[in-house]
Amino acid sequence: MASTAFADSAPRACDLLVRADAVITQDDERRVLTDAAVAILNGMVIEVGDYATLDARYDPLQRLDMSGKMLMPGLVNGHTHLPMTLLRGFADDLPLMDWLEGHIWPVEAKLDEDLLGIGARLGCAELIRTGCTAFLNGYFHERVTGEAASGCGLRAVLGEGFFAFPSPFFPTAEVCWEAIRSLEEHFRDDPLVRTAVTPHAAFTVPPEVLAASFELAESLDIPWQTHLAESPTETAVCLGKYGMRPVEILRREGLLSPRVTLHHCVDVEEKEIAQLAASGTNVVHNPASNLKLCSGMSPVQAMLDAGVNVGLGTDGASSNNQLNMFRDMGLAALMGKVRHGDASAVNAQTALDMATRNSARCLGWPELGRIQAGHPADMIALDLSSPNLMPVFNHVSHAVYASTGMEVCMTMVAGEVLYLYGEFRTLDVSGLRKEAVRCAKWVRNASGK
Amino acid sequence: MASTAFADSAPRACDLLVRADAVITQDDERRVLTDAAVAILNGMVIEVGDYATLDARYDPLQRLDMSGKMLMPGLVNGHTHLPMTLLRGFADDLPLMDWLEGHIWPVEAKLDEDLLGIGARLGCAELIRTGCTAFLNGYFHERVTGEAASGCGLRAVLGEGFFAFPSPFFPTAEVCWEAIRSLEEHFRDDPLVRTAVTPHAAFTVPPEVLAASFELAESLDIPWQTHLAESPTETAVCLGKYGMRPVEILRREGLLSPRVTLHHCVDVEEKEIAQLAASGTNVVHNPASNLKLCSGMSPVQAMLDAGVNVGLGTDGASSNNQLNMFRDMGLAALMGKVRHGDASAVNAQTALDMATRNSARCLGWPELGRIQAGHPADMIALDLSSPNLMPVFNHVSHAVYASTGMEVCMTMVAGEVLYLYGEFRTLDVSGLRKEAVRCAKWVRNASGK
Repeated sequence: MASTAFADSAPRACDLLVRADAVITQDDERRVLTDAAVAILNGMVIEVGDYATLDARYDPLQRLDMSGKMLMPGLVNGHTHLPMTLLRGFADDLPLMDWLEGHIWPVEAKLDEDLLGIGARLGCAELIRTGCTAFLNGYFHERVTGEAASGCGLRAVLGEGFFAFPSPFFPTAEVCWEAIRSLEEHFRDDPLVRTAVTPHAAFTVPPEVLAASFELAESLDIPWQTHLAESPTETAVCLGKYGMRPVEILRREGLLSPRVTLHHCVDVEEKEIAQLAASGTNVVHNPASNLKLCSGMSPVQAMLDAGVNVGLGTDGASSNNQLNMFRDMGLAALMGKVRHGDASAVNAQTALDMATRNSARCLGWPELGRIQAGHPADMIALDLSSPNLMPVFNHVSHAVYASTGMEVCMTMVAGEVLYLYGEFRTLDVSGLRKEAVRCAKWVRNASGK
Repeated sequence: MASTAFADSAPRACDLLVRADAVITQDDERRVLTDAAVAILNGMVIEVGDYATLDARYDPLQRLDMSGKMLMPGLVNGHTHLPMTLLRGFADDLPLMDWLEGHIWPVEAKLDEDLLGIGARLGCAELIRTGCTAFLNGYFHERVTGEAASGCGLRAVLGEGFFAFPSPFFPTAEVCWEAIRSLEEHFRDDPLVRTAVTPHAAFTVPPEVLAASFELAESLDIPWQTHLAESPTETAVCLGKYGMRPVEILRREGLLSPRVTLHHCVDVEEKEIAQLAASGTNVVHNPASNLKLCSGMSPVQAMLDAGVNVGLGTDGASSNNQLNMFRDMGLAALMGKVRHGDASAVNAQTALDMATRNSARCLGWPELGRIQAGHPADMIALDLSSPNLMPVFNHVSHAVYASTGMEVCMTMVAGEVLYLYGEFRTLDVSGLRKEAVRCAKWVRNASGK
């Protein structure tokens, strides 16, 4: 008995004990704990509870006192194009097709890996600053973004974008598949970086190529994601080309499944929503981008009610123009009400779920998006002394409606602190600013503007 | 000749010379100057130009080096209820009438001047932090908000709210008019504070009381403002009570004029927009509040195209839940596109105009909202080293689409710096946090929640 009592009371080892005024856990019961603490060992959360209990129970190597702050899971960005951060504010107030064809694609065609790397690192800086700890990317030369993310300690799922073949990057499908296999192999031992298969869209990639790429995703057992049903214009193009709406193109090819994540789904009908739900297909909502490009308002609450897993993304900084998940979380909640004519639609808890647990499932990384024993220690702290967070009645409401994202004063991935009180520990942000100035000159020259 | 040359080259006096990487002037030509400076004397801007020229021309008492920053006019909040900051996040995800009648009004009825003052100072802290330098308020016990604003150096236009008579505050109209006259007199010598006449709304104040209060505004030569056409529900109430839509009620009473500012105007028809334009009536758009309470989306671009002056406001922190004009400026631009089915609607320059010059006209203070010689020195600086503001192609785009408001690192009113690099010079924000904790307890008790 004595020995058991001794064992019970002996302090347990952990790497880090974080104390905070409140912890939004996002666990299955959506508990919000006050005067709480989180114990971390080997990059994983081993216990969450009240501070006094954990303080007595653990003998941590390090302590992080976040008094006056609230902890919450790091946000998970379900859809972005990180290197496009280079083009932030380069072309605004234009519809999707004009914006792509007249402004973005001509410059993108000239970007090299050096420039893409700067864009990716700029994007990582903003993600870290605004409390995002994992993201799903789609672009070209994805090894560059993977190295940027891994280098600064963020989690990333990389999608090498492709269209029909032959293309400037890939003369045949087999060359593209080989590039994706090699990307997957390159990062296989990196715990922060994973790979997905990411055809651009159903209106730019032929159905048989979509289907072949899905087989690749199955053979590598990795996620498959694409832009889909982003706007009524896209639907019209698909009807013209194939006589089918976008969701129907995928359904016919057997491409609705839990492995699949569809970005946008603005123009989806009731029957299509039921098909997405029945097949376990995931959707990522991108409210800022959908508004800015005038694509429309996605029926998010209808999809959620039908049982679809809907995550949240920022899209790229050139159509948002931020990579700030707090901004899109607030927008999802605000827009959802007017979209559905119901002030209770997409409530605060729902919006936070979208930005954490739901997005994590879209990444094929469902263990992310919560602060819970046995889950990765990816979390952020918000400074409750920011005037816009006073007074406090409801921590979840503050995260969704009152925060700008800039209240984030600590960002942690796998137990490593990447950002603390203004200091970026894994990125040289002042150096990046000089590189950004150089890049902006290059873009202006390349575009002839 | 020699003496003239000497006179030309003799340094001129000024109180302050501010240098910045860029100045968004919002002058008539909407010039954006780079490597620029602003000279300030007696609280007024006396010259704006390139830094080298002004540096040679002036011998300032003080210099403020804002290198790496961009200056822009302080934003003007055209509609808010500052003491309601106390109720931030207290009741969310509810439609307008449920929210008011079930949650807000019962607590409001019990608030005293001590609590209102704390709410007002909390609101001032957030306005200063997020770059707002003047606001138009509507609430009760408005002297409290006037003293809070004046005490921390912000400009305010105060509107003592009233409904039908008798009411808990005002047994008769004459008592109310006397209270407004006395408020106006109290602040007459305060250069920062003005007064307006502010009946609550056309569905809560009888038409003859609206008309009598307008006469008071005319006799004092001050603005007259009211909530109007906020939602289809309000329209239905007006039709039921008076057989008229809200704008028609005002028009019949002769209450459309340049002295008038109408808050919201979500549910307005083409004919009504033409009446607002022809009469010179001003409108304030409140996008976050309109979305959150599911009131709808105002036809902002249609009103602007018709020639209506449309400003921008945050509404109160309990229906937003921020007092951050940058957030509402971005929302106005994003929502405007989907509302009008046109990605070029409410473009970045338009949204910035709404938040500066247009709102200033709504306040009856049209000299505000620009950085220009002969105008008050109300301005803010945004830190361009924030990762979300890199790279820079277009400063106006960054202000509207990329900024969160927290990039504001300096806020100045009438040449006085109220906030600089995290330091509030006119408010004890850590003391306020303790008061906010006390208030939150009071609200919970008062509401029985």
